[in-house]
Order: sequence, then structure tokens, then C-alpha cells
Amino acid sequence: MIRLFVEDPLSQGFLLGLDATRAHYLIHVMRMNIGDSLLVFNGRDGEWHAEVEGTGKGWCSLKIGDKTRDRGYPSDLWLLMAAIKKPRMAIAVEKATELGAGLIWPVITRHTVMANVNSEKLSLTAIEAAEQCERLDVPDVRPPTALMDILSKWPEGRSLVVCAETGNARPAMDVFSGWAREPAHPTAILVGPEGGFAKEELEYLASLPFVHFIGLGPRILRAETAAITALSLWQATCGDFGLPPRGEPD
Amino acid sequence: MIRLFVEDPLSQGFLLGLDATRAHYLIHVMRMNIGDSLLVFNGRDGEWHAEVEGTGKGWCSLKIGDKTRDRGYPSDLWLLMAAIKKPRMAIAVEKATELGAGLIWPVITRHTVMANVNSEKLSLTAIEAAEQCERLDVPDVRPPTALMDILSKWPEGRSLVVCAETGNARPAMDVFSGWAREPAHPTAILVGPEGGFAKEELEYLASLPFVHFIGLGPRILRAETAAITALSLWQATCGDFGLPPRGEPD
Repeated sequence: MIRLFVEDPLSQGFLLGLDATRAHYLIHVMRMNIGDSLLVFNGRDGEWHAEVEGTGKGWCSLKIGDKTRDRGYPSDLWLLMAAIKKPRMAIAVEKATELGAGLIWPVITRHTVMANVNSEKLSLTAIEAAEQCERLDVPDVRPPTALMDILSKWPEGRSLVVCAETGNARPAMDVFSGWAREPAHPTAILVGPEGGFAKEELEYLASLPFVHFIGLGPRILRAETAAITALSLWQATCGDFGLPPRGEPD
Repeated sequence: MIRLFVEDPLSQGFLLGLDATRAHYLIHVMRMNIGDSLLVFNGRDGEWHAEVEGTGKGWCSLKIGDKTRDRGYPSDLWLLMAAIKKPRMAIAVEKATELGAGLIWPVITRHTVMANVNSEKLSLTAIEAAEQCERLDVPDVRPPTALMDILSKWPEGRSLVVCAETGNARPAMDVFSGWAREPAHPTAILVGPEGGFAKEELEYLASLPFVHFIGLGPRILRAETAAITALSLWQATCGDFGLPPRGEPD
């Protein structure tokens, strides 16, 4: 069944007018007709049945039916990712969405080759991945920001896990399994650029009390692979991988 | 430093003639000249220094220097992957190589939409990824084969881990952590097609003593994401993620 992310509030009996892009997608790409069923979600009100109520040139209205799932509790997991080339950045965003990241933040580091990151386009990639993977929320994709600016306003209580190829990195599982029994461990994963972090960035990171360096084995992973791997390991130990498919937390 | 996979045996002082494709890559793509240094590996003899000894139209010869690393022990991990669309299949092969899979086998299942899988091309993707990630071997990419044929000749002592969205799947970590203390646990990860396995395939798989169904959380992962995630979790628990970057087993 088609799942569509919408911005509007959702409740039973509500009549929803879609914007031209979504109307075009439903009517011309997915070839839906009046009376056809789909699922809609907005990241706040859970997932609902909906039915195509009317269509015309550039518009489509949906009638909201009953609720199929409550919103659940999204994983409190962030991905901070040094900007890399567009297709690989898109892979990272798609996979991070599938793996339940709540926030995705392109960061600018000393050695970042500043490919012009388009956060709006990455946001669309995240919405599409959320529709596909049956998530009930969409990650917040932030505009690219300098790493040092993010670090200077770091939120209290959140660990920053740096994927590192050198230095005093501990195996990822040693770090994550220590957090597994806590009720919640807010975490951000940071992946550096292809050229690695600058020496002074590593030194600064190492001086911060909330930073943990993790290693991901003997091979040198591409940036997007490191992101996917680290997110997977966190979800499997501290996150929601214990839940069944399409499952809801208790 | 450039790393090049070659087919020939390697030993100190050996003079190696490259084929036209590799010669073109070194001379015209990477713009190397006589006397320039690189690293070579062949999957059997470890990694060696080499120097460009001579070049000409369509050829290049290398002089092999000293050995930089022994071969190590590749992870005994296979990926069996129902054929999916080419770009996503390529992502799966690239990432499986980075994550240390020793064998990658495109499989044909009941619901596989048989995109024409080109194993030779996927093999090139694997070689490129191995060069990039500093592996000392290259995964063996097999030609596409019917799942049932593979199962009928299943090697003794190897577990088959099926990524499943339904059924009696256990969380991946529950299964893998049980194997973590064994000296080695030969494993194959099986990922089904986008349409899932057929009912009779699932029933047959469930009847086999070497099969374990694992779940990868509440979201529905794309096939290549499931592959990357499952390989990551296996390496982190049963594999070589405890080793430092570029590290060698004791």
C-alpha cells in the first residue's frame, strides 16, 4: 500500500488537500483514482488510512479514515556527516532514515571538500525513504554547519561517537554495549570526510568529555559505509532492533 | 598511495607486466610515471611495494619491492543476495567488500525480478572497493544461481542467516552474540528480493537445520541496507571489528 508523508494534522474524517507535487505523484505516477486507498503520516499523529476523495488538474483531496498505528517513540539518534559527493551523501541520508536516525546534519570540517550540499533535496530523499521503510516520522535534515559551531553548543546529556581510523578508538561494540542497559542513551554519530579529520580537530574532539572514538574494523570504510555501519550497531545494541518489523514499542 | 589488485604471483624483485586496462588506469587516469611508487596485492601473497619500471602504448611494467603486509585471515562470511536493480546491487557489492565478505552470490528466488545480473561487472566493483578499503583479498563474486540449487549443496558447518521481515525471526544480536565466543563461525547472510520470499521458500528454509531467521528492527529495510546492516552486525560480534584500522590478526 502507498504511504505518503504530508505536513497537515491528521484526524478521522478530516479532508486533506494535497499540494500539486503530491497530487501529481498520486494521480499520474501511482495512477490512483477516486476511492483508492493509501496510508498517510505526518511525523506527529501516527499513521492513518486515507481515500482519494476528488482529483482535478493539479489537485487531489484525501479523506482521512481510521488510525492504523500510533506514532511510537523515535530513536534518539543523530548522524553528523561531513559533506561528501552528492550521490554518496544521498545514500547516507536514505540509509540513515531507514535505520531510524532522528536528525541528519551535514557538517563542514577542515578537510571537507565542500560539495554544495542541498539540504532541501536531501530532505526529500529522507521523506521518500521514510515513506518506503514504514517509519512514522521523518528525520530533520539540517543545513550544513561548521563542526566547531555545532560542538560549541553541544546539548547536555548527548554522547558524540566519532568514527575514527586512528587514535585511541575502541571497538564500537565495547562502547555501545556499555550503554545497552540504560533506558535511553542520546547519541550522535560523527563521520569525517574522505580525507579524515585534521589533527587539531581530533585533538579538540579528544578533549571533550562527551566524545567517544570508535573503530569499525581493519578495513578503511567509505564515509557513507561508516555511517550506515555505526548506526546499525547502535540500533542493535542501544536502539530498537529488538522490535519486530512494523512493530511498536510497548 | 595507490593500491592495485593484480592476478599474478608477487615476490620481491619480480617484474610484472600489466594488462592494457590496468596500464591505462595507472598511466592515463592516475598519471603515474617511471619511478613512481604504488602498492599491489593479489589476494594470496599479501601487499607489496611496487615501482613503475617502464611504460609504453598499452603496457606498463612494475618492479615488485618489499612486502608491506601479510595476507591476514579473511573473515569467513558470505553474502547471498537476491538480484535487485543494478545500481543497488552495485552498492551492496561495494559495501559487502568493505565489510569483509569473502564470497558474494547473487541468488534467484521465486519473487526475484531477474534484472540481468552481470557478475563480471560486479566483480570489477568488488576489486575497486578492495583496492580502496585496503583489503588484501577480493571477494569471489559468483554467477547468479537459483536459491534452491545452492541450498541443495549447502556446505557442512556453515550457518545460513536469513534476514526476514516476518515469521519467527530473532533479533540479530541475540543470534550473533551466541556465536561470538566461538573461534570461528562460518556464516552466510541471505537477503531476499524486494517482494520478499515466497511462502514455500520460507517454509523450506525454516525446515533446514542450519538456518536462522534474524530481524533487523521495526522499519522495513531495502535489500541492500539489510545486507550492509547484517554484515556489520556479524563483523562486530563474530568477525574482525575488534582489530585496529589496517590491522593484522595476531
